[in-house]
Amino acid sequence: MHWARWGDPALAKPLPDAVRNLVMGALGVSGEPTLAVEMEDVRLPEGTLPAEFASAVEALLDAEYVRTDHETRVRHTRGKSTPDLLKIRSGDGSDAPDSVLLPGNHDEVQSLIGLCAKHRVAAIPFGGGTSVVGGLAASRDDFAGVVAVDLSRLDKLIGVDPISQTAELEAGLLGPAAEVLLAEHGFTIGHFPQSFEYASIGGFAAARSSGQASAGYGRFDSLVVGVKVATPIGTLELGSAPANAAGPDLREVVMGSEGAFGVITSVTVRVRPVPETRVYEAWRFGSFVEGATALRILAQGGPTPTILRLSDEAETFVGLAKPNEVGAADASGCLMITGYEDTAEHVASTRAAVTEILGGLGGTVLGEEEGASWASGRFHGPYLRDSLLDVGVLAETLETATFWSNMTALYDGVRNAVTESLTAKGTPPIVLCHISHVYATGVSLYFTVVAKQTEDPLTQWLEAKSAASTAMTDVGATITHHHAVGRDHKPWLEKEIGPVGVEILRAIKERIDPAGILNPGVLIP
Amino acid sequence: MHWARWGDPALAKPLPDAVRNLVMGALGVSGEPTLAVEMEDVRLPEGTLPAEFASAVEALLDAEYVRTDHETRVRHTRGKSTPDLLKIRSGDGSDAPDSVLLPGNHDEVQSLIGLCAKHRVAAIPFGGGTSVVGGLAASRDDFAGVVAVDLSRLDKLIGVDPISQTAELEAGLLGPAAEVLLAEHGFTIGHFPQSFEYASIGGFAAARSSGQASAGYGRFDSLVVGVKVATPIGTLELGSAPANAAGPDLREVVMGSEGAFGVITSVTVRVRPVPETRVYEAWRFGSFVEGATALRILAQGGPTPTILRLSDEAETFVGLAKPNEVGAADASGCLMITGYEDTAEHVASTRAAVTEILGGLGGTVLGEEEGASWASGRFHGPYLRDSLLDVGVLAETLETATFWSNMTALYDGVRNAVTESLTAKGTPPIVLCHISHVYATGVSLYFTVVAKQTEDPLTQWLEAKSAASTAMTDVGATITHHHAVGRDHKPWLEKEIGPVGVEILRAIKERIDPAGILNPGVLIP
Repeated sequence: MHWARWGDPALAKPLPDAVRNLVMGALGVSGEPTLAVEMEDVRLPEGTLPAEFASAVEALLDAEYVRTDHETRVRHTRGKSTPDLLKIRSGDGSDAPDSVLLPGNHDEVQSLIGLCAKHRVAAIPFGGGTSVVGGLAASRDDFAGVVAVDLSRLDKLIGVDPISQTAELEAGLLGPAAEVLLAEHGFTIGHFPQSFEYASIGGFAAARSSGQASAGYGRFDSLVVGVKVATPIGTLELGSAPANAAGPDLREVVMGSEGAFGVITSVTVRVRPVPETRVYEAWRFGSFVEGATALRILAQGGPTPTILRLSDEAETFVGLAKPNEVGAADASGCLMITGYEDTAEHVASTRAAVTEILGGLGGTVLGEEEGASWASGRFHGPYLRDSLLDVGVLAETLETATFWSNMTALYDGVRNAVTESLTAKGTPPIVLCHISHVYATGVSLYFTVVAKQTEDPLTQWLEAKSAASTAMTDVGATITHHHAVGRDHKPWLEKEIGPVGVEILRAIKERIDPAGILNPGVLIP
Repeated sequence: MHWARWGDPALAKPLPDAVRNLVMGALGVSGEPTLAVEMEDVRLPEGTLPAEFASAVEALLDAEYVRTDHETRVRHTRGKSTPDLLKIRSGDGSDAPDSVLLPGNHDEVQSLIGLCAKHRVAAIPFGGGTSVVGGLAASRDDFAGVVAVDLSRLDKLIGVDPISQTAELEAGLLGPAAEVLLAEHGFTIGHFPQSFEYASIGGFAAARSSGQASAGYGRFDSLVVGVKVATPIGTLELGSAPANAAGPDLREVVMGSEGAFGVITSVTVRVRPVPETRVYEAWRFGSFVEGATALRILAQGGPTPTILRLSDEAETFVGLAKPNEVGAADASGCLMITGYEDTAEHVASTRAAVTEILGGLGGTVLGEEEGASWASGRFHGPYLRDSLLDVGVLAETLETATFWSNMTALYDGVRNAVTESLTAKGTPPIVLCHISHVYATGVSLYFTVVAKQTEDPLTQWLEAKSAASTAMTDVGATITHHHAVGRDHKPWLEKEIGPVGVEILRAIKERIDPAGILNPGVLIP
């Protein structure tokens, strides 16, 4: 992962001309490059770790697993939200950890957490570093120092249970490595969020990730049957059965806890046989509401494809899936992507049934080529964002979810809030939206916002984001469907779960982590 | 509900001759009746409620909703486990509440809880009164008195959202009444546990109930999208979206909390259109393992019927579904029930696909008559238990769940533990088992145990149950798949969730209910 951009810079492509023309035309961007500082010029805080803590860590980990060099610290500074990128590009490394520690197994994580608690050192669990909610910037206040607990050495497939179709994976495994290890046994998790290539198994659980194929495989939290967590008061291990009635489901307390209750060191997930066949197909619907109704009918009555997405008119017109064809003449209506991953027989029967239903609901099939085009670019969005930031465009995403009957209120609310906020700054945005996940009872909306940067793009975005977050909670929707709370969504959490909900989180936090050293500042209001 | 038996005594039938002969023959039961005391002879404790509390309650509720008469107190004494029945039949009403309060809405529940906290009065939420885990017997220790908070007046369908296919139901609605109200809108919850006719919506959520049609509709907790709870520190209301990433899912903390964190006053659940067609069918498999393998293949690869159950050889032989034919010549192998509830078209296509798969896996179809026979008796098991208790037979059920690869170890472990315990008392049991619920990754096992009663059937059963519970947790299975923890499973909970898990429960309890007045003694070790 590049320290100030997404992914592997070798895979980044220059901004397509069509997009460049669009942003220069519609947004009034000059196109002048706004490049980042060099890595060596990122300003880092002085480390403040107590010597006693440092020597205790030295006794626990080999020297190569205790890193305080400039590059490693920069690479563990914050995550990959647009504000994170804007800050690091400007040379602001103020949230860097003093030291990056690389334990090799659960017991070492457990020991490290104990040392951090003893010495009042803040500990930030670091998996893939892909947080987009401010999940990786600990509060320094009152702490003796800050360390990142990098989980990349916890990269083993602990075991596969082919009968139960489950697998236990260490938390530091990144998406592709986990899939490679499972494929050797003929299995897949089927969890493919846009961050898939760089995000970790532990992060998927800690942040309640949801992937592009969630219609078929389910959200990550719905796949988790067991977790192992290192906490300051000991190890928490859960997973006696797929489901049970043995009190509250504490797996659901660990999931979404974002490192604030403990460090997830392994996760046991449901796996499925690697599909024989994968087919992606595109459809066009006359309007967003028409397409959404079709998705709802599939989600409620079945059959459901493995992948179901629907772009609104604006996103379809801009054609993010095919940046070279932005504004092409045939980009009218709303683009839907359906994907089928299963045995050839199941793919054929499900596809035939879905085709009949979608056709009956006014959809026009565009075929597999458009579907394949979406699939080939499915992980590339963040590269495009870097290219836009490079030419002075503010680009970021927002996501939320609600029940079906509330979808239009949520859609209008968020679009209007973002548009008003940015227009008031003199930078009217383009706001695109797609339905990224569907449930029988509801739907998630994923917005992409682009606007010309002002002199202070950070404040510009934070105000727009704040307006959007208020709009979400005003209509009773969730502040986040699959990106977690972090620091960025925290001000709205109490509105969503109420004061009693907040007290539950605080009570757990104070009991498990009395010193408050676990990822301080995230999640808990 | 009868005060010392299940359900409506008018619907109870005398013990079928075949069962009578079986228990007299195989168990050595004499058949002498062991009847219960009369209701007026049940011994109740003196009420100890402080006068100040009583007058505060009088100011809140009309006199008709504050009941201290003998009959009402007896009817709110404990639940319907066999130990509960043995106690009440013997005249032991020591766990009776001092008073039964009937609030009419959420705000009145909230106020009552506040009064209980202020005056240190233990409050037991009482829905349908069908707990089988000691969930309705509060500890009196240290409390000024004990009240049952009867929710039967919270019996409204608050609203239906036909677009999102959700409905908000008050907690005191019993299963049949909820279904009648929803049917007026064309919907069903599809939740049909054996207790369906007498259990409440709030109880389903508080105890994480799972119904006979869970293969198709899902467990009750998987259907819940929102809850409203009265707690001593205020109202907790959750349900912003079908799923989200806004921290831990606190709905999953409320579910399974058994009244220890608050009183659930309403639940919003996913509903589905009332099925056009319902078909139940029976199959025979050569062995339990063969049948279980077939269930696993359906659960993992689909399609799944709405109902999937499999009796082991012993249960098939005894033929609990058709008590008049116990030991009939054709009761060999293992009986499987498949049920289909959907549109006629979906029923036909799913049934055809399932028939092909089950046939290919060695199953023999027995047809719809045997299926209908199961369906007609699906809620009658508890009546049979009363008839057995009447003739000196100890009869009770046990349930658990595990991952598929662990099923045989769990099956053997529980059967052996129960058999050894009861045999050591000189009362070798008959132990029957069926698979009651299936998941892609695992399975629940439901055991029925019958034996001749000793002089002290309560101790006899508690020791057998203890042996079974230890066997469950020894193999890593759950102490309960769908009956909750209550007081009866509490000693094993720490083995299942570990000391850190217990601390999480305690921290929540102490924060929400600092006076500890909510259903004291259940759930939390």
